[in-house]
Amino acid sequence: MTDRSSAPHRGDSPIGDVPAAEFRAAAHAAVDWIADYLENPAAHPVRSRVRPGDVRSALPASPPTHGEPLDAMLRDFHATILPGITHWNHPGFFAYFANSGSYPGILGELLTAGLNVNGMLWITSPAVTELEELTLDWLRQLLGLAEGWTGQITDTASVSTFYALAAARERAGLDVRTQGLAGRTDMPRLRVYCSEHAHSSIDKAVMALGLGHENCVKVAVDEQFRMRPDALEAALAADVAAGYRPIAVVPCVGTTSITSIDPVPAVVRIARQYNCWVHVDAAYGGVAAIVPELRYLLDGVDGADSMVVNPHKWLFTPMDCSVLFTRDPATLRQAFALLPEYLVTRTPDATTNLMDYGIQLGRRFRALKLWMIMRAYGAEGLAERIRHHCELARDFAGMVHFEGGWEITAPVTLSLVCFRHVPAGADEATIATVNAAIMERVNARGHVYLSHTKLDGRYTLRLAIGNIRTDREHVELAWRELRDAAAVVGNAAS
Amino acid sequence: MTDRSSAPHRGDSPIGDVPAAEFRAAAHAAVDWIADYLENPAAHPVRSRVRPGDVRSALPASPPTHGEPLDAMLRDFHATILPGITHWNHPGFFAYFANSGSYPGILGELLTAGLNVNGMLWITSPAVTELEELTLDWLRQLLGLAEGWTGQITDTASVSTFYALAAARERAGLDVRTQGLAGRTDMPRLRVYCSEHAHSSIDKAVMALGLGHENCVKVAVDEQFRMRPDALEAALAADVAAGYRPIAVVPCVGTTSITSIDPVPAVVRIARQYNCWVHVDAAYGGVAAIVPELRYLLDGVDGADSMVVNPHKWLFTPMDCSVLFTRDPATLRQAFALLPEYLVTRTPDATTNLMDYGIQLGRRFRALKLWMIMRAYGAEGLAERIRHHCELARDFAGMVHFEGGWEITAPVTLSLVCFRHVPAGADEATIATVNAAIMERVNARGHVYLSHTKLDGRYTLRLAIGNIRTDREHVELAWRELRDAAAVVGNAAS
Repeated sequence: MTDRSSAPHRGDSPIGDVPAAEFRAAAHAAVDWIADYLENPAAHPVRSRVRPGDVRSALPASPPTHGEPLDAMLRDFHATILPGITHWNHPGFFAYFANSGSYPGILGELLTAGLNVNGMLWITSPAVTELEELTLDWLRQLLGLAEGWTGQITDTASVSTFYALAAARERAGLDVRTQGLAGRTDMPRLRVYCSEHAHSSIDKAVMALGLGHENCVKVAVDEQFRMRPDALEAALAADVAAGYRPIAVVPCVGTTSITSIDPVPAVVRIARQYNCWVHVDAAYGGVAAIVPELRYLLDGVDGADSMVVNPHKWLFTPMDCSVLFTRDPATLRQAFALLPEYLVTRTPDATTNLMDYGIQLGRRFRALKLWMIMRAYGAEGLAERIRHHCELARDFAGMVHFEGGWEITAPVTLSLVCFRHVPAGADEATIATVNAAIMERVNARGHVYLSHTKLDGRYTLRLAIGNIRTDREHVELAWRELRDAAAVVGNAAS
Repeated sequence: MTDRSSAPHRGDSPIGDVPAAEFRAAAHAAVDWIADYLENPAAHPVRSRVRPGDVRSALPASPPTHGEPLDAMLRDFHATILPGITHWNHPGFFAYFANSGSYPGILGELLTAGLNVNGMLWITSPAVTELEELTLDWLRQLLGLAEGWTGQITDTASVSTFYALAAARERAGLDVRTQGLAGRTDMPRLRVYCSEHAHSSIDKAVMALGLGHENCVKVAVDEQFRMRPDALEAALAADVAAGYRPIAVVPCVGTTSITSIDPVPAVVRIARQYNCWVHVDAAYGGVAAIVPELRYLLDGVDGADSMVVNPHKWLFTPMDCSVLFTRDPATLRQAFALLPEYLVTRTPDATTNLMDYGIQLGRRFRALKLWMIMRAYGAEGLAERIRHHCELARDFAGMVHFEGGWEITAPVTLSLVCFRHVPAGADEATIATVNAAIMERVNARGHVYLSHTKLDGRYTLRLAIGNIRTDREHVELAWRELRDAAAVVGNAAS
């Protein structure tokens, strides 16, 4: 901790920033630290070992009166912040859909912070709007989507989905924008449909939009955890008969628990019959379509209305960067656009003002990092990395499958493996206890970090591959640690 | 432009990142460029001079097949991106509430990008949650708010306000979370109140929440553009009598057009009588309360329910960083919390999972930059800088006031000056034309960038001070350029 009683620092000056020389020294040190860190992130335990309150209590409870030098902050960063970090950059991070702080992405973030522009209007930095449009068209091409899709960058898939469902609500033709939903005799209950394995962001969007959580209808899945078209059709028909108004269906390409792939073509066909907006949640799985032999994952999407894909998940882009694609930007604009006088500019009509397509006015220059990533790896480099992760997942699944006393609990469609230990004769309750103990033991060792889910009530472990630094050795290590832990847990129980 | 037919690059490798050495070289170069740039941002024209399409058409229409070296991107950054940047870092940027890419903030962003953690749950990086809680408590103390306020960082004020109004909607006791607003016989029309000078983000939040734009009620202002308590009370009474249900009032501390300050104590008193949530929009003006003699700006806020303050506006924090403070986190949580099985963790009950207080699940480590900024400048350093900007605004207003043929059009409460040229005998239409021509002429010269608004139909120029690099010389330059432009425009007209 820094001595905070020290003499006033240059930061106390009434104007201007701290000295540039101080920034240069600290930022060069930070660059070298980041490169060192990313050359060997496995030097750290993957899951933080601090106890609740450790980080906060190690820092002063009040801000300093006088400014402090930047290197004081770097010292505290290493001493206090870093132990409180769970390392998503660690090649043994398998707990959630991995992200990657890749070098070109970090370089892009650095330049974005230096420029610090707000692209709310075209004129407030034309490069922000135009590079966003260009970069997302590059992404559209990589994904094999037809022309006619336009994209915008948002912070998270939750916001992308929220915007898409706001557009769906607007397209219902009930003038929700102006009159709202409440207290109208002409307003039916509006419903949104997704599978029972859909992500909680869809529930949250439905709640936020004022549709009510009970109007987020969960459609049954088949034995591979995919939305059942017959169940969707039955739900829609029953709800219409009961006076509900279906407005949107949200199939998922790569569900969170098990990366199941809903049948988008069938969903689109049925949804069209009910005039529903189709929003495809491909936040995790969508980028896999960059791999030519996986392009089929997005079959049928060209018939949908919108899709979310998150480069900050599996496209090596630092957080945050989610992309909302839509074929109907006019309706999205209708849901959100407003132009107060203080934002009127003289720019030509041909320019886009990205603020018109959502609630956020401020807009970081997020396209820069994504553009740099697509250039640094190229289409083939991106495809190779994603393909490699899928191969690693299949390898791991093979190890599990051929080992007695273990089972795969869901089809391996992409780079996630759902599996569990099944001791001979154990009932479901015992299996849950044993696997939770195995997971906790592995996670505590610091080399590997896993998570779990429940499938039809069955406790299941999840190994999610997606970090750019993860290779076969890390997957093999995970498997060794899991078997070792199972042996210890088994011995303790017997 | 790079030769894209070149041989495959290391980025094509099937695994791993580009070489660390390449990152080091590029990132060190970027750090030096940023320091050079910020030592003299005025070397660039403040407003970009590109024409629509210039940036996009200068870049390839499709992504490269093979990876390219990082320095190829840096070359294109300088040649193509930079001309398309409007420089918010320029000390002559007066067009919108200024932001500042300050050195400690850029350092924080760099480290955040390197760590690239997602603080959705406490355990997924305890330091993210705990530093966010600590840093926002520091900010609370700096603002002079009572204990009992808790904060969370969001990307923009629009989202902060949206969350606050979602909580207001939930507190109405109508179970909107579960049942929604539509098709219910027990559901009155819900209304939100703000002044006619409130920011468009409030309109957008009301629309997004499904309340309907017509239920965002604009209350009349007094001669200083402040919400009139009597008009608020009359609107509430009339609406209740007409069957509407008021749920929230949004007073503003520092409106966008003219930085007027709504009378928060009176608004709170009236809103309480109607059981309304009070959300204070202090996105721009709130941080001024760090200056002891300006602390009165937040008088009465301790009686409100929530407040938004944007460090990425006037607290020298790179975008994005908005803060939503609330005294009722339980209701906010009630509006949004959901816990799917794949996010269940074993962490103690005492920990906060920040994902429960909004729709976003992903969470960047934004607190790091804000913490570094508060430390780098200290409480006194922050106050001095904000005070200095207010002094510059008063200086500029003085120059305008004492010059014949010019007038101040709104009280100068903080660091924004509303003013215009008034040629002798000119009618309103002529004044509008003349001032628009003056603004366009000044903006085209590249040293100063202004914007405009309309006050009761009267065209008005705006000079907004807030960048950390803006000093008296830049304000004086703005005034010289304005007078020169007025002379030229006047001669052209005569």
